[in-house]
Parts: sequence; C-alpha cells; structure tokens
Amino acid sequence: MSAHTEYPEALELLVQAFVRLPGIGRRTAERLVFSLLDWEPELLAEFGRRLANLPNAIRICSNCGNLADREKCAICLDSGRDPSLICVVESPAQIMVIERARCFHGIYHVLGGRISPLDGRGPDDLRIGQLLDRLAVESVRELILATGADVEGEATASYVRESVKRSGLRISRIAFGIPVGGDIGYADSATISMAIGSRHEIT
Amino acid sequence: MSAHTEYPEALELLVQAFVRLPGIGRRTAERLVFSLLDWEPELLAEFGRRLANLPNAIRICSNCGNLADREKCAICLDSGRDPSLICVVESPAQIMVIERARCFHGIYHVLGGRISPLDGRGPDDLRIGQLLDRLAVESVRELILATGADVEGEATASYVRESVKRSGLRISRIAFGIPVGGDIGYADSATISMAIGSRHEIT
Repeated sequence: MSAHTEYPEALELLVQAFVRLPGIGRRTAERLVFSLLDWEPELLAEFGRRLANLPNAIRICSNCGNLADREKCAICLDSGRDPSLICVVESPAQIMVIERARCFHGIYHVLGGRISPLDGRGPDDLRIGQLLDRLAVESVRELILATGADVEGEATASYVRESVKRSGLRISRIAFGIPVGGDIGYADSATISMAIGSRHEIT
Repeated sequence: MSAHTEYPEALELLVQAFVRLPGIGRRTAERLVFSLLDWEPELLAEFGRRLANLPNAIRICSNCGNLADREKCAICLDSGRDPSLICVVESPAQIMVIERARCFHGIYHVLGGRISPLDGRGPDDLRIGQLLDRLAVESVRELILATGADVEGEATASYVRESVKRSGLRISRIAFGIPVGGDIGYADSATISMAIGSRHEIT
C-alpha cells in the first residue's frame, strides 16, 4: 500500500493470509478480500470454521496415505477397484489429477514427498517402508511409478524401484513426452528429448 | 470430480467456499486447499478467525463511506488531505486503486454502488443524500466524479451531477481514453471513440 492510506487492520491481515496461498499476489488477495466484504456473516463464519477445522477433519488413509474422512480413504474402501495394481504418487493432489482422467482403476500409494537432498528430504522421509509392508501382505501384480518427470521425481522413482524389486512384481513408469494436443513448437528441450528418446515403432 | 472418487468432505466444502470467490475456479480452489493442508494448525485457525470476524471488525466511515477501523476512515482523519476536494467513487475498492497512484490529495465520498435498473438499484440505494449533507456543511470547491466508464457509471455520474449542482461548486469527471503505455492496436472501439471524442488540441 502507498504511504497515503492503509486498509483497516482486519482487512490488511486477511489480505496477508491470502497472499500466503500459492499463485495469489497482493492485488488478487485485495480483490478477494473486498469480495468477502459482500458475503453474509454466516457464510464467512462457516468459511472460517472450515479453515480452522481442516487439520482435525482430514485424516491420512492408514493403507495408502491418501486424504481421508475416516481410517481409510474412499479409494481403498471402494470394492470396485483392482487392488493388485498400485500407482505410486508423491502426494494426494496427484491422485485427484489421475482420478479425473478416469483411466486408472487400481489403488494408490502416497509417498508423502520426493527425494530432495537440497531440501533435506531423503528416502527415510517417504512412506517407502509402508509400501514394502503392503507388498508383503497385499497381492500386488504391478506397481506404476507416477512420481514427477523432473530430476527429483526420477530419483524418487529409481529409489522406489530398487527398494521393491522382487520376482513376479511388474514395475512400470508412466510415459513422458509431448502433451496430447500439444504443439511440438511449444515443447521445451527436455520434453522433446524425452519424447524422442521414448519413441516407439509404429510400422 | 469424477464419479471415481471424492475428496474428504471437509476438503470438498472448503473447495466450494473458495470457488465462491471471484476468479477462483474449481481447479484453483483445489490447489489452494491442498496448499492449506501444509499450513500450521495455528495459522489456519487464525485465518479462520479473521474471516469469521471480518463483519465485526470492519466499519463504514461515517463521513465518506470508506472502510474504517473506527468511526472515521484513515483518509478522513488525515489532516494532510485537502477536504475541499472530494472524489466520488462507487466503492471502497476504487479508493485503494486511486490511492495507489498517489496523485490525489483530497478526500472521498463512496456512493456504495451504481445506478443499475437491471439489478433493481436506483439512486435511492446510493449514498447521495449523505453527499448532499456533506456539501451543506463542508467547504467543498470541487467534486470529481470517478464512477465507471460504462453506461451505468455514466448514468450514475450524470445523476450525481444533477443532484449536486449549485453555484460555485466545480464538478469534474475523470478522463477516459487509451491507457498510458497502451497500444492503440489493442484498444476496444468504445475506448477509441472516447479517446477521439475527448481529444484536445496540442498546438
């Protein structure tokens, strides 16, 4: 704000809270908070309660590590899913993206992060032990490694692959390349390299 | 969401709250809520309290209608401002935009909206009576009408102009035209018409 004037404190503090959110700059936060001034007090109170209550209301699925309402998540409780196919992801947010594509009917395992030495995160910070425990008791035929396409995602996938290697378990990695509908002219070099390196014969 | 899976209810309700905010779509709301899962519970509780408390904490300046902490807003209380120059705006958000430009040293009057027959808002819904009251007691030399550049903003400015006409009071309207730094090639027809209609001789 200019030195000329200031927002009322209650408004300013709320703007600062919104600015902590990813992708929300100062101007956007101000616009959001101004719009909140038009909300019914009951709606605002409810919004506030939901925020404050979030840590209590959300649980971590004891089986796969996904977000859950109760002990297990909706996917692990769904008898229509194929439990012999486990897709390994870094975070619950990635599960939602995969679910939206409606192409996968197995279940998941959330690592809870990625190996990132720069951030001080090693393999011991991930839920790899829990994955091994699951493989010991569940009848799993394939593990799909769906960690990120960057160096850390690759390192994480490699580490998981080495950890879970055993006879009869198929381990696969999701494909990386030019996005469907994407123009090659806009792809970055790393994606082009990946797309050419992973090319497959079509004749 | 797909029929495949659902977010935990606490998360889904929070996503729905964020979607009510302007410019926040479903995907963005999900991203914001996922990021909130990483917040410290105390920070979330504080954010929640601030939201719920907003209606109690914000007052409307008894003089100009701007947002305030106390009976009068920071601008009306600032003795460094010129009280003989009043800029008439539709909403407090516009005051902040004008303040940021640091070009105006007068004070404000917030109408609290605009004349919009389609939304059932007439002149009686605006703080025009309060403006007349101010003009009766304050020593004002100029009124700058800074309502919007669209039809409703123009209608509102016209109505205010007719209401406050009196000898010795200068009434002005902010200028509309090509934005500074703007390329004429990107301007819409209405702006071009306004810029050409409001042209001024430079020789």
